[in-house]
Amino acid sequence: MDINQGGFMMHWGKFFCFVFMSTLFLTGSSSDTWGAPAKPSQATETCLACHRAVTPGIVSDWENSYHSTSTPAAALEKAKRERRMSAAQVSDEVSGHVVGCAECHTANPDAHPDTFDHNGFKVHTVVTPADCAVCHPTEVDQYSHNIMAQAYGNLNHNPVYHDLVEMSIGTQKFANGELSVDPPNIDTESDACNYCHGTVVEFQGLEERSTGMGTMSLPKYSGWPNQGVGRINPDGTKGSCAACHTRHNFSIEMARKPYTCGECHKGPDVPAYKVYMVSKHGNIYNSHWKDWDFKAVPWVAGEDFTAPTCATCHASLVVTPTGEVISERTHQFNDRSAWRIFGLPYAHAHPKDADTTKIKNSDGLPLPTSLDGTPATEYLIDENEQNKRRATMKRVCSACHSEGWTNGHFERFENTIQIMNEKTLTSTGILLEAYNSGVANGLADGDSLFNEALEKKWVETWLFYANSTRFSSAMAGADYGVFANGRWYMNKTIAEMADWLEMLKKIHDDED
Amino acid sequence: MDINQGGFMMHWGKFFCFVFMSTLFLTGSSSDTWGAPAKPSQATETCLACHRAVTPGIVSDWENSYHSTSTPAAALEKAKRERRMSAAQVSDEVSGHVVGCAECHTANPDAHPDTFDHNGFKVHTVVTPADCAVCHPTEVDQYSHNIMAQAYGNLNHNPVYHDLVEMSIGTQKFANGELSVDPPNIDTESDACNYCHGTVVEFQGLEERSTGMGTMSLPKYSGWPNQGVGRINPDGTKGSCAACHTRHNFSIEMARKPYTCGECHKGPDVPAYKVYMVSKHGNIYNSHWKDWDFKAVPWVAGEDFTAPTCATCHASLVVTPTGEVISERTHQFNDRSAWRIFGLPYAHAHPKDADTTKIKNSDGLPLPTSLDGTPATEYLIDENEQNKRRATMKRVCSACHSEGWTNGHFERFENTIQIMNEKTLTSTGILLEAYNSGVANGLADGDSLFNEALEKKWVETWLFYANSTRFSSAMAGADYGVFANGRWYMNKTIAEMADWLEMLKKIHDDED
Amino acid sequence: MDINQGGFMMHWGKFFCFVFMSTLFLTGSSSDTWGAPAKPSQATETCLACHRAVTPGIVSDWENSYHSTSTPAAALEKAKRERRMSAAQVSDEVSGHVVGCAECHTANPDAHPDTFDHNGFKVHTVVTPADCAVCHPTEVDQYSHNIMAQAYGNLNHNPVYHDLVEMSIGTQKFANGELSVDPPNIDTESDACNYCHGTVVEFQGLEERSTGMGTMSLPKYSGWPNQGVGRINPDGTKGSCAACHTRHNFSIEMARKPYTCGECHKGPDVPAYKVYMVSKHGNIYNSHWKDWDFKAVPWVAGEDFTAPTCATCHASLVVTPTGEVISERTHQFNDRSAWRIFGLPYAHAHPKDADTTKIKNSDGLPLPTSLDGTPATEYLIDENEQNKRRATMKRVCSACHSEGWTNGHFERFENTIQIMNEKTLTSTGILLEAYNSGVANGLADGDSLFNEALEKKWVETWLFYANSTRFSSAMAGADYGVFANGRWYMNKTIAEMADWLEMLKKIHDDED
Repeated sequence: MDINQGGFMMHWGKFFCFVFMSTLFLTGSSSDTWGAPAKPSQATETCLACHRAVTPGIVSDWENSYHSTSTPAAALEKAKRERRMSAAQVSDEVSGHVVGCAECHTANPDAHPDTFDHNGFKVHTVVTPADCAVCHPTEVDQYSHNIMAQAYGNLNHNPVYHDLVEMSIGTQKFANGELSVDPPNIDTESDACNYCHGTVVEFQGLEERSTGMGTMSLPKYSGWPNQGVGRINPDGTKGSCAACHTRHNFSIEMARKPYTCGECHKGPDVPAYKVYMVSKHGNIYNSHWKDWDFKAVPWVAGEDFTAPTCATCHASLVVTPTGEVISERTHQFNDRSAWRIFGLPYAHAHPKDADTTKIKNSDGLPLPTSLDGTPATEYLIDENEQNKRRATMKRVCSACHSEGWTNGHFERFENTIQIMNEKTLTSTGILLEAYNSGVANGLADGDSLFNEALEKKWVETWLFYANSTRFSSAMAGADYGVFANGRWYMNKTIAEMADWLEMLKKIHDDED
Repeated sequence: MDINQGGFMMHWGKFFCFVFMSTLFLTGSSSDTWGAPAKPSQATETCLACHRAVTPGIVSDWENSYHSTSTPAAALEKAKRERRMSAAQVSDEVSGHVVGCAECHTANPDAHPDTFDHNGFKVHTVVTPADCAVCHPTEVDQYSHNIMAQAYGNLNHNPVYHDLVEMSIGTQKFANGELSVDPPNIDTESDACNYCHGTVVEFQGLEERSTGMGTMSLPKYSGWPNQGVGRINPDGTKGSCAACHTRHNFSIEMARKPYTCGECHKGPDVPAYKVYMVSKHGNIYNSHWKDWDFKAVPWVAGEDFTAPTCATCHASLVVTPTGEVISERTHQFNDRSAWRIFGLPYAHAHPKDADTTKIKNSDGLPLPTSLDGTPATEYLIDENEQNKRRATMKRVCSACHSEGWTNGHFERFENTIQIMNEKTLTSTGILLEAYNSGVANGLADGDSLFNEALEKKWVETWLFYANSTRFSSAMAGADYGVFANGRWYMNKTIAEMADWLEMLKKIHDDED
Repeated sequence: MDINQGGFMMHWGKFFCFVFMSTLFLTGSSSDTWGAPAKPSQATETCLACHRAVTPGIVSDWENSYHSTSTPAAALEKAKRERRMSAAQVSDEVSGHVVGCAECHTANPDAHPDTFDHNGFKVHTVVTPADCAVCHPTEVDQYSHNIMAQAYGNLNHNPVYHDLVEMSIGTQKFANGELSVDPPNIDTESDACNYCHGTVVEFQGLEERSTGMGTMSLPKYSGWPNQGVGRINPDGTKGSCAACHTRHNFSIEMARKPYTCGECHKGPDVPAYKVYMVSKHGNIYNSHWKDWDFKAVPWVAGEDFTAPTCATCHASLVVTPTGEVISERTHQFNDRSAWRIFGLPYAHAHPKDADTTKIKNSDGLPLPTSLDGTPATEYLIDENEQNKRRATMKRVCSACHSEGWTNGHFERFENTIQIMNEKTLTSTGILLEAYNSGVANGLADGDSLFNEALEKKWVETWLFYANSTRFSSAMAGADYGVFANGRWYMNKTIAEMADWLEMLKKIHDDED
């Protein structure tokens, strides 16, 4: 029997509409349970009246969302493990209606400098974690302990790191045989590093704009648009929940799929997404996701999914088919990460504090290790905490893997951490020899650490190749540890650096 | 209730077949409307009689197509916005049958040099835009105004560009310490650049071939197979509609999905697909496409899809849920593009004419800017036209985004255009210094602009890194503007070029 | 009529459960046919009793598998073309129950050194091809003729190749201006090359572990975990069927999807997956796979799928809609490959024997060609065999393509093979000149062929760029033959090598 199943379903669809239309409409409309439909507040209805025409895309998006079909009151009636909101209660004002435009865009009006009068409502455009915390306070609090929440300041207020930014995206000029670098302007910074790290969004006052509804006074912002993970909001809060829970659907399905993490964790500096996609887990995901349930809360291992996504290991409430908790939901994603494996020359124990600008290494620089790899121990978690985090992660593995399997995997990962640190030490040694022999200029010469070709090759050894290899080892996606930006490129670049050093010496020798 | 939905559907399928088989067959067979089934012409039935056995794959593919279920007559009864064909009427001969093998492969027989006698029919193998224009004349006309339609000539008849082809894919020989380059043969050209740009397909006469149906006289072509966007067809027309509307399904779903554009717009020279996939839009697409309707005409924003694909912004007829037109269907894709951002050293206003070989810059070369970035203004659209195109594009954004959001986005893009042109000027400055100091040979020396290592690094600064950064900025996929072939590589390559220049000088100094 | 089909199905699901629940349960439970349900053996039930709680993920995974719903006896009742098992019969012991934990993990107990007593059962953890061969002997035998089955030894027992491993993933040290290389430790080898090639898995005895079921004696292995294609198993067999048929679902759907091959065939050295994804075939796959049937046996071209995946061309039993065989199922994947196009400096006719360590070229090295490209003919298949394999592959193409189309495609591929070999000869010439002039050290100097920067650039010309171009040509994904690691990079690297040679000479000249 060869029936094209896709076509079959469509034919069935047509047929069904005729026969059961009324049944469907009774059971299928936007009610939270099988009881009375949940409705938008009067304020939200007012928003919708115009915005359905003005910005139909986001209204439709919201209409397909869980927010549009459920009320906080209904959510609180659920068993605790099935809840998606962490507030124990919410005010009567917001409790009885679905979570619509007004519920978020008019929350906490006095805290938002950008609150403006919009057809009689005190509206703010930029919804912030403080607004989300009305219903999701635990998640907002946990999130604030991530390095991600400090992504803006950690990059821009750390002088070493901000120098890397300037040399990476600034504008070089060539004159008289010499290169100089103009720092990037704010649009370039927003378009590049701060797209993911977050911009500073500042309210610049209202401006008149002609719209489909006539001329209106509407807010103007600097640093806008942005949805970076460490965005500095007009109300002073940090981060954007929409970075992962994309407006205006706020879909748990989307947050659980790997594309969301991949928006910022895909490049050569942090190839987590690519490593996942080439791993056995990624293979299973790609082959079978169509059969999985990405909306179930709690998320049942084996039933709702058969291989982890990013969220499974780092964030979600995961249970066994009989309801035993495998891992609790967390929005402090590093609580399962013993090591920090990317973004710095050497892997090191995770920083204690999300604000890494406070760290001082033995060279006096705000880096978690010194140039020779020595960790700034007092700022980093200790072995006990590392063991605890590792155990939490291993518990997730245990849903499908024996302890022998898991231990073998983690032993290799620890080995990779150590070996790649040794390799970074080798590439650093070549750079230091260039400084010592006067053919390159570093910090000791009052020059940038990141502006010369040899320095940039050195940066790639740790920022690309050691990072890539560590991710490959952590998530078992071998390609990225061998030929795809892995050990091959590490070793090749080190060999090139050694030759490049000789060539620089040659050029400089004769100048003497 | 934990039901595996995949399994559920299959069980249901089995059950349903028993009970409702006859109903299904009545309502679900290939009829265009709920009326009488549309049938193939007698000629097409004759084709199918053999080809079902000889090339079953493409016959099945066609059977799943819209072409196989609809007639031009039925299409013309639809409301204008719902039509997929633009001809106001077609001849009686083709009007009443579905669009099958014979309708296309025997159209315009006298115009096709490759028309041959095939079992009593005058058949041509290579269906061309002129054949598609029988039903889709507006699309064929619009398409001809794309630079893409001229992709063969623009690459191969522009001496500067064809030199780039030869140096990029030709065969180097090393003898007596010197490299020389043999030009690529035609198979290499067809397999490389012309795979996307299009080959020259020429009818070489008939040859005897033994087939499943006995020995037959069948046509032989040079440049075959090919489905490049600027293919030069035997009938003199340009392009292949099958480049995007893949034979023999000609699926609008496929043309609207990003993989189609990705076939040619994915590499480091034009990474549109990769940028999209790492953008928020791409994330939404990947997470939610399974819930979208890719076949609806017109395409309803918010209902049929919740984030744009390539087609949404550049091609499709998009309407609001209430039927207001957001953007008209166009097959002149550049009518929303103010700038041309790839393929040339500097970004510049779009050329007026799709045939870019006519352009002359101030250096007398057929390039839209001179080597210092000065645009060949008279050949490029003016600011008014740029504003008009930008406004058309912004209208698409407005389905989901406020004007403040959209303006902020486009301001950054304009900034990127300017800054990346400045950076290209810097890398060009290093190359010119190499020419001036005699350590490299350029056009003024009667040598290729693209054959030496330093020149190839220079090419990468604009062809890969500036292009990638511009796409990243245009489509908000930050990775490709920073570490993934973006500003990092731009700046690193420029730093390497500066050192390389010194090394070349060193080598040449002592030679003097 | 705009119905969200996804939502529609869910409403329908709810409704259906109410009305037809009993019907469903009668027809839809885990029975292999419409008769009595197939059940696990008593031994498997015993396993499940604990493992449902201890490793719920893999139990659920198995429960969704074909193995859990079908018995060998039922399989043998099927028509031959519909069978998934190749054994003509199996013992009564295993015939009547579904294929569960015990059937595989207690098979051939005496052959497995790691068999241990586990709650009264003689269990081994590492299931090997010898166990799978109980039901799938033909597949296991065919697989053993792949170079893949010898992937461990071919890499690690070939001194030239193992030197490449050591230089690629070993740890460089920089001292006194010189680089040296420490060989990789076993964890690094397992985590890198041997992840895909396979590790040596050795039983190290039992160790006590505290588990959810109390303290137990459980096996410990070196080289574990691993599922590489050439894994050396404790019982001496080679390979892991789970490399492609992922535990514990063993899904034919997954093996037929390209992600499975992509786990190991995605990197720059073997970019088959990436080439596929950018090809027309990959585009069709990505756009339409949701409408395909990946489970049908045999696999019907045009009906079950409309474009090939990796499996279609290299492995699957493919038939026409009328049941004519297009290609037989094979697990000797190279039986359709005339050339070996990757992993070695030059493309060459496929080796006769899967164990390539036996080969000796005219230089006396265990390589299929000498450094100038001359093939070690006696170890390679002859032209007749090449023609036979090419014909088998072309037969697959013929399901959708005319002979003219297919011939044109293969002519270009043959041209690419020849031209890329010429280019490799050019890059080899530059390296030899470096050896001859004493600025680099090769085998003749008692030094590695792969440790210096110039040598690593040479390796990239063939291991990355020539390979990538050949895959691009073989599978019509042009990007990877031009700018994405294709001819552009080949030519650029050769130009760089020529300059690098001059620079090395410069450095060394003055040393003299």
